[in-house]
Amino acid sequence: MTSIQQPSVTDTAAAAEAAIVYVCVTCRHPGEPDSDPRPGALLADATASAAQGSGVTVRRVRCLANCTRGPSAAVRVNGSWTYVFGGLDVGGAAALVEGARLLAGAADGIMPWRGRPEPLKRGLIARVPPLDFQEEIP
Amino acid sequence: MTSIQQPSVTDTAAAAEAAIVYVCVTCRHPGEPDSDPRPGALLADATASAAQGSGVTVRRVRCLANCTRGPSAAVRVNGSWTYVFGGLDVGGAAALVEGARLLAGAADGIMPWRGRPEPLKRGLIARVPPLDFQEEIP
Repeated sequence: MTSIQQPSVTDTAAAAEAAIVYVCVTCRHPGEPDSDPRPGALLADATASAAQGSGVTVRRVRCLANCTRGPSAAVRVNGSWTYVFGGLDVGGAAALVEGARLLAGAADGIMPWRGRPEPLKRGLIARVPPLDFQEEIP
Repeated sequence: MTSIQQPSVTDTAAAAEAAIVYVCVTCRHPGEPDSDPRPGALLADATASAAQGSGVTVRRVRCLANCTRGPSAAVRVNGSWTYVFGGLDVGGAAALVEGARLLAGAADGIMPWRGRPEPLKRGLIARVPPLDFQEEIP
């Protein structure tokens, strides 16, 4: 009965499969001394754990060049806008996975503001359009 | 003779054809009152002029969500990293076109630091990898 009105868990996981979270493993907290492991690496581990079973792919990258406002991550789905977030702590891991799921489910390729986890609102650094995007500007 | 050692103008333009500069037309200078046209729109016009004959495509977009550090633009080539820049003024137009050309000519998809115009060094906001990127992390 409800299967028509809302996607099943399996459908949701399938939709999220195309979603990728790139976590910068070299990020530090700005102004704090170096540490090992770095906050970015801890965020990557936490995000990978949070993503288990979600269908969201987590990729570790070395630098997203958002060094003054790290720890950083980017979220993208093939054909969507790409979102860069900063100022994340380990608590941002679940937010990244939820944001990736929201983006995967967005037909217009834009991560909805409503329902977007708080760390992905206050931590928004930039967004870039999909490759073939052309704005309708009068 | 020299055609073997360095690309001709035609080759360079062809290589740059895949390069896209997205300029945010809604950007203001942070902390300054609104104006019409907005600084972002002026930057887009200047970039379109600077790109003439270069093979670089300039696209106007409404918001790159880098509002606190605008005016903003992003540079990308299919398969390359995507670069977001901020704090640009109209003088950044030629820099964006030159950066796009550098990126189009980079076999590794990374905009070289050496030779990169100064506004694209000090104005770097973030970069995101190509969709299929997987970092080699031991």
